[in-house]
Amino acid sequence: MQPTSVPVHGPDFTKNAGLVAAVAQDANNGEVLMVAWMNVEAYDETIRTGRAVYFSRSRNKLWRKGEESGHYQIVRAVYLDCDADTVLLKVEQEGAACHEGYRSCFFREVTPAGLQISATRLVDPADVYKPEARNSKSEKSTTLE
Amino acid sequence: MQPTSVPVHGPDFTKNAGLVAAVAQDANNGEVLMVAWMNVEAYDETIRTGRAVYFSRSRNKLWRKGEESGHYQIVRAVYLDCDADTVLLKVEQEGAACHEGYRSCFFREVTPAGLQISATRLVDPADVYKPEARNSKSEKSTTLE
Repeated sequence: MQPTSVPVHGPDFTKNAGLVAAVAQDANNGEVLMVAWMNVEAYDETIRTGRAVYFSRSRNKLWRKGEESGHYQIVRAVYLDCDADTVLLKVEQEGAACHEGYRSCFFREVTPAGLQISATRLVDPADVYKPEARNSKSEKSTTLE
Repeated sequence: MQPTSVPVHGPDFTKNAGLVAAVAQDANNGEVLMVAWMNVEAYDETIRTGRAVYFSRSRNKLWRKGEESGHYQIVRAVYLDCDADTVLLKVEQEGAACHEGYRSCFFREVTPAGLQISATRLVDPADVYKPEARNSKSEKSTTLE
């Protein structure tokens, strides 16, 4: 059921197996932090609570960003693209968006010499995720789940 | 076949039916312009030519951004996310990235009152796309193809 708090002309969840892509962008400096997926429940909870919630395809459940790491995303604005199958969130990022400990998941640049790490690691993932969480991370193997 | 110019540790095209998501961001002001898809050929041509090339899922062929509209994207830098299934392009955008005539496809903000257009239209699509192109646009119905 379409939750009532979702705008009538909100995202189109019919095109991609109930999912829309979601880009999280730093509301302060414009840095693109990550790309993930949302189903209608994730989108609705994001709008209702003002905290980014995604849908984990590998775990097949809602992924409340920061619930393990404390690295929440406070949502300042939400935009839809022209065909309504991608959402752009402008967020205040608490700590590191990436489970590898970088502020952005896009910490590697493609260069003629191969991939080069172009950012500084903010935190050691071992300090952020509990052992159970780390196991879960290695099982899933992806952030764009 | 993996083109030789693609870095050894480049995008992982195995996870999503041969495609990776691609975010185009304005290299000058950080604006997120659009999200689309790339297959290995699109990615390789982007790297080789320095112009953004996507893969149109609806038309099942390469989509050389700007080939109809003249609104090319000159690629200044390419980044991969942590699990290598999303590409971030920093681009110099010629004209409007969006086929609706807006600079960014994310020209509508989600507000409690519904969707609100939050950008100024740069060009009239009727002035940009030829009639054949417009027909093709209305057939495909999406930009995240």
